[in-house]
Amino acid sequence: MAANLYDVAYDVEKAIRESDEFKSLKQMYSEVNGDETTKKMFENFRDVQLQLQQKQMAGEEISQEEVEQAQKMVALVQQHDKISKLMESEQRMSMLIGELNKIIMKPLEELYGSMEER
Amino acid sequence: MAANLYDVAYDVEKAIRESDEFKSLKQMYSEVNGDETTKKMFENFRDVQLQLQQKQMAGEEISQEEVEQAQKMVALVQQHDKISKLMESEQRMSMLIGELNKIIMKPLEELYGSMEER
Repeated sequence: MAANLYDVAYDVEKAIRESDEFKSLKQMYSEVNGDETTKKMFENFRDVQLQLQQKQMAGEEISQEEVEQAQKMVALVQQHDKISKLMESEQRMSMLIGELNKIIMKPLEELYGSMEER
Repeated sequence: MAANLYDVAYDVEKAIRESDEFKSLKQMYSEVNGDETTKKMFENFRDVQLQLQQKQMAGEEISQEEVEQAQKMVALVQQHDKISKLMESEQRMSMLIGELNKIIMKPLEELYGSMEER
Protein backbone atom coordinates (compact mmCIF):
# COMPACT_ATOMS: atom_id res chain seq x y z
CA MET A 1 0.00 0.00 0.00
CA ALA A 2 1.34 3.42 -0.96
CA ALA A 3 2.42 5.71 1.88
CA ASN A 4 -0.18 8.28 0.92
CA LEU A 5 -2.99 5.78 1.43
CA TYR A 6 -1.74 4.97 4.92
CA ASP A 7 -1.60 8.68 5.74
CA VAL A 8 -5.14 9.45 4.66
CA ALA A 9 -6.49 6.30 6.35
CA TYR A 10 -4.90 7.43 9.61
CA ASP A 11 -6.48 10.86 9.13
CA VAL A 12 -9.87 9.14 9.04
CA GLU A 13 -9.00 7.09 12.11
CA LYS A 14 -8.07 10.28 13.98
CA ALA A 15 -11.21 12.08 12.81
CA ILE A 16 -13.37 9.18 14.02
CA ARG A 17 -11.65 9.22 17.38
CA GLU A 18 -12.29 12.96 17.68
CA SER A 19 -15.89 12.82 16.45
CA ASP A 20 -18.83 13.53 18.73
CA GLU A 21 -20.29 10.18 17.68
CA PHE A 22 -17.29 8.25 18.94
CA LYS A 23 -16.87 10.30 22.09
CA SER A 24 -20.46 9.79 23.14
CA LEU A 25 -20.32 6.09 22.29
CA LYS A 26 -17.24 5.74 24.50
CA GLN A 27 -18.93 7.69 27.28
CA MET A 28 -22.09 5.56 27.13
CA TYR A 29 -20.08 2.34 27.11
CA SER A 30 -18.21 3.34 30.20
CA GLU A 31 -21.47 4.26 31.93
CA VAL A 32 -23.07 0.94 31.10
CA ASN A 33 -19.96 -0.94 32.14
CA GLY A 34 -19.60 1.08 35.30
CA ASP A 35 -22.70 -0.48 36.78
CA GLU A 36 -22.61 -4.25 37.32
CA THR A 37 -26.38 -4.84 36.93
CA THR A 38 -26.64 -2.68 33.83
CA LYS A 39 -23.60 -4.34 32.32
CA LYS A 40 -25.02 -7.83 32.90
CA MET A 41 -28.37 -6.84 31.40
CA PHE A 42 -26.71 -5.43 28.32
CA GLU A 43 -24.41 -8.42 27.86
CA ASN A 44 -27.31 -10.79 28.21
CA PHE A 45 -29.23 -8.81 25.58
CA ARG A 46 -26.25 -8.92 23.22
CA ASP A 47 -25.84 -12.67 23.68
CA VAL A 48 -29.46 -13.35 22.76
CA GLN A 49 -29.20 -11.04 19.74
CA LEU A 50 -26.04 -12.76 18.56
CA GLN A 51 -27.51 -16.24 18.97
CA LEU A 52 -30.54 -15.31 16.89
CA GLN A 53 -28.37 -13.74 14.20
CA GLN A 54 -26.19 -16.82 14.01
CA LYS A 55 -29.23 -19.06 13.73
CA GLN A 56 -30.62 -16.87 10.98
CA MET A 57 -27.35 -16.92 9.07
CA ALA A 58 -27.13 -20.68 9.39
CA GLY A 59 -30.64 -20.93 7.95
CA GLU A 60 -32.02 -22.45 11.18
CA GLU A 61 -35.59 -21.86 12.14
CA ILE A 62 -36.30 -19.41 14.94
CA SER A 63 -39.17 -20.47 17.18
CA GLN A 64 -42.08 -18.24 18.14
CA GLU A 65 -40.90 -18.50 21.73
CA GLU A 66 -37.46 -17.20 20.82
CA VAL A 67 -38.93 -14.28 18.89
CA GLU A 68 -41.10 -13.37 21.88
CA GLN A 69 -38.20 -13.68 24.32
CA ALA A 70 -36.11 -11.38 22.12
CA GLN A 71 -38.93 -8.84 21.80
CA LYS A 72 -39.41 -8.78 25.57
CA MET A 73 -35.72 -8.21 26.00
CA VAL A 74 -35.67 -5.31 23.55
CA ALA A 75 -38.59 -3.72 25.39
CA LEU A 76 -36.76 -4.22 28.69
CA VAL A 77 -33.45 -2.69 27.62
CA GLN A 78 -35.19 0.18 25.85
CA GLN A 79 -36.72 1.19 29.16
CA HIS A 80 -33.28 1.29 30.69
CA ASP A 81 -31.98 4.83 30.35
CA LYS A 82 -28.26 4.10 30.06
CA ILE A 83 -28.65 1.10 27.78
CA SER A 84 -31.06 2.83 25.45
CA LYS A 85 -28.67 5.78 25.22
CA LEU A 86 -25.81 3.40 24.45
CA MET A 87 -27.90 1.77 21.73
CA GLU A 88 -28.66 5.18 20.26
CA SER A 89 -24.97 6.02 20.27
CA GLU A 90 -24.20 2.74 18.54
CA GLN A 91 -26.84 3.47 15.94
CA ARG A 92 -25.31 6.87 15.21
CA MET A 93 -21.81 5.41 15.05
CA SER A 94 -22.97 2.72 12.70
CA MET A 95 -24.59 5.32 10.43
CA LEU A 96 -21.38 7.32 10.42
CA ILE A 97 -19.34 4.25 9.47
CA GLY A 98 -21.88 3.49 6.76
CA GLU A 99 -21.53 6.99 5.32
CA LEU A 100 -17.74 6.79 5.41
CA ASN A 101 -17.79 3.41 3.69
CA LYS A 102 -20.10 4.73 1.00
CA ILE A 103 -17.64 7.52 0.20
CA ILE A 104 -14.53 5.35 0.37
CA MET A 105 -16.02 2.51 -1.67
CA LYS A 106 -17.24 4.80 -4.46
CA PRO A 107 -14.42 4.00 -6.92
CA LEU A 108 -15.11 0.27 -6.61
CA GLU A 109 -18.85 0.71 -6.80
CA GLU A 110 -18.46 2.67 -10.01
CA LEU A 111 -16.21 0.01 -11.46
CA TYR A 112 -18.52 -2.89 -10.61
CA GLY A 113 -21.59 -0.86 -11.52
CA SER A 114 -20.24 -0.09 -14.99
CA MET A 115 -19.54 -3.75 -15.48
CA GLU A 116 -23.11 -4.81 -14.77
CA GLU A 117 -24.52 -2.25 -17.19
CA ARG A 118 -22.60 -3.64 -20.12
CA MET B 1 -21.31 13.81 10.28
CA ALA B 2 -18.77 16.58 10.91
CA ALA B 3 -17.34 18.34 7.85
CA ASN B 4 -13.84 17.19 8.72
CA LEU B 5 -14.87 13.54 8.55
CA TYR B 6 -16.29 14.04 5.06
CA ASP B 7 -13.08 15.74 3.97
CA VAL B 8 -10.78 12.98 5.15
CA ALA B 9 -13.08 10.27 3.78
CA TYR B 10 -12.92 11.94 0.37
CA ASP B 11 -9.14 12.06 0.67
CA VAL B 12 -9.17 8.28 1.04
CA GLU B 13 -11.54 7.92 -1.90
CA LYS B 14 -9.19 10.00 -4.05
CA ALA B 15 -6.14 8.08 -2.88
CA ILE B 16 -7.82 4.77 -3.76
CA ARG B 17 -8.71 6.09 -7.19
CA GLU B 18 -5.10 7.13 -7.74
CA SER B 19 -3.59 3.94 -6.33
CA ASP B 20 -1.75 1.43 -8.53
CA GLU B 21 -4.06 -1.25 -7.16
CA PHE B 22 -7.18 0.50 -8.40
CA LYS B 23 -5.67 1.53 -11.71
CA SER B 24 -4.59 -1.99 -12.56
CA LEU B 25 -7.94 -3.41 -11.44
CA LYS B 26 -9.71 -0.99 -13.75
CA GLN B 27 -7.35 -1.84 -16.59
CA MET B 28 -7.85 -5.59 -16.15
CA TYR B 29 -11.62 -5.20 -15.97
CA SER B 30 -11.70 -3.31 -19.22
CA GLU B 31 -9.50 -5.94 -20.86
CA VAL B 32 -11.71 -8.79 -19.71
CA ASN B 33 -14.83 -6.91 -20.75
CA GLY B 34 -13.34 -5.91 -24.07
CA ASP B 35 -13.42 -9.46 -25.32
CA GLU B 36 -16.85 -11.10 -25.58
CA THR B 37 -15.67 -14.69 -25.00
CA THR B 38 -13.49 -13.74 -22.05
CA LYS B 39 -16.26 -11.67 -20.56
CA LYS B 40 -18.76 -14.54 -20.81
CA MET B 41 -16.32 -16.99 -19.25
CA PHE B 42 -15.66 -14.65 -16.35
CA GLU B 43 -19.35 -13.89 -15.78
CA ASN B 44 -20.19 -17.55 -15.85
CA PHE B 45 -17.45 -18.21 -13.28
CA ARG B 46 -18.77 -15.43 -11.04
CA ASP B 47 -22.32 -16.76 -11.25
CA VAL B 48 -21.26 -20.24 -10.17
CA GLN B 49 -19.19 -18.79 -7.32
CA LEU B 50 -22.10 -16.66 -6.17
CA GLN B 51 -24.56 -19.54 -6.28
CA LEU B 52 -22.29 -21.70 -4.15
CA GLN B 53 -21.74 -18.89 -1.67
CA GLN B 54 -25.45 -18.28 -1.35
CA LYS B 55 -26.10 -21.98 -0.79
CA GLN B 56 -23.40 -22.09 1.85
CA MET B 57 -24.80 -19.06 3.65
CA ALA B 58 -28.29 -20.52 3.57
CA GLY B 59 -26.89 -23.68 5.16
CA GLU B 60 -27.79 -25.80 2.12
CA GLU B 61 -25.71 -28.80 1.23
CA ILE B 62 -23.33 -28.53 -1.72
CA SER B 63 -23.11 -31.72 -3.75
CA GLN B 64 -19.87 -33.42 -4.74
CA GLU B 65 -20.78 -32.70 -8.35
CA GLU B 66 -21.10 -28.99 -7.68
CA VAL B 67 -17.75 -28.91 -5.89
CA GLU B 68 -16.10 -30.64 -8.85
CA GLN B 69 -17.78 -28.32 -11.34
CA ALA B 70 -16.54 -25.30 -9.40
CA GLN B 71 -13.00 -26.69 -9.16
CA LYS B 72 -12.88 -27.31 -12.89
CA MET B 73 -14.04 -23.80 -13.50
CA VAL B 74 -11.38 -22.31 -11.23
CA ALA B 75 -8.73 -24.34 -13.08
CA LEU B 76 -10.13 -23.13 -16.38
CA VAL B 77 -10.19 -19.42 -15.55
CA GLN B 78 -6.76 -19.61 -13.91
CA GLN B 79 -5.34 -20.73 -17.24
CA HIS B 80 -6.85 -17.72 -18.90
CA ASP B 81 -4.25 -14.97 -18.86
CA LYS B 82 -6.55 -11.95 -18.67
CA ILE B 83 -8.97 -13.46 -16.18
CA SER B 84 -6.23 -14.70 -13.88
CA LYS B 85 -4.64 -11.23 -13.95
CA LEU B 86 -7.99 -9.67 -13.14
CA MET B 87 -8.40 -12.07 -10.23
CA GLU B 88 -4.94 -11.14 -8.98
CA SER B 89 -5.84 -7.45 -9.20
CA GLU B 90 -9.04 -8.09 -7.27
CA GLN B 91 -7.07 -9.93 -4.63
CA ARG B 92 -4.67 -7.01 -4.23
CA MET B 93 -7.52 -4.50 -4.12
CA SER B 94 -9.31 -6.55 -1.51
CA MET B 95 -6.15 -6.69 0.62
CA LEU B 96 -5.78 -2.92 0.35
CA ILE B 97 -9.39 -2.39 1.43
CA GLY B 98 -8.81 -4.79 4.30
CA GLU B 99 -5.76 -2.82 5.45
CA LEU B 100 -7.63 0.47 5.20
CA ASN B 101 -10.55 -0.93 7.17
CA LYS B 102 -8.22 -2.21 9.86
CA ILE B 103 -6.77 1.28 10.32
CA ILE B 104 -10.09 3.11 10.18
CA MET B 105 -11.89 0.69 12.50
CA LYS B 106 -9.16 0.82 15.17
CA PRO B 107 -11.02 3.17 17.52
CA LEU B 108 -14.07 0.89 17.53
CA GLU B 109 -12.01 -2.24 17.89
CA GLU B 110 -10.27 -0.79 20.92
CA LEU B 111 -13.59 0.16 22.44
CA TYR B 112 -15.20 -3.24 21.95
CA GLY B 113 -11.97 -5.02 22.86
CA SER B 114 -11.73 -3.18 26.18
CA MET B 115 -15.32 -4.15 26.89
CA GLU B 116 -14.68 -7.85 26.44
CA GLU B 117 -11.66 -7.79 28.72
CA ARG B 118 -13.64 -6.44 31.63
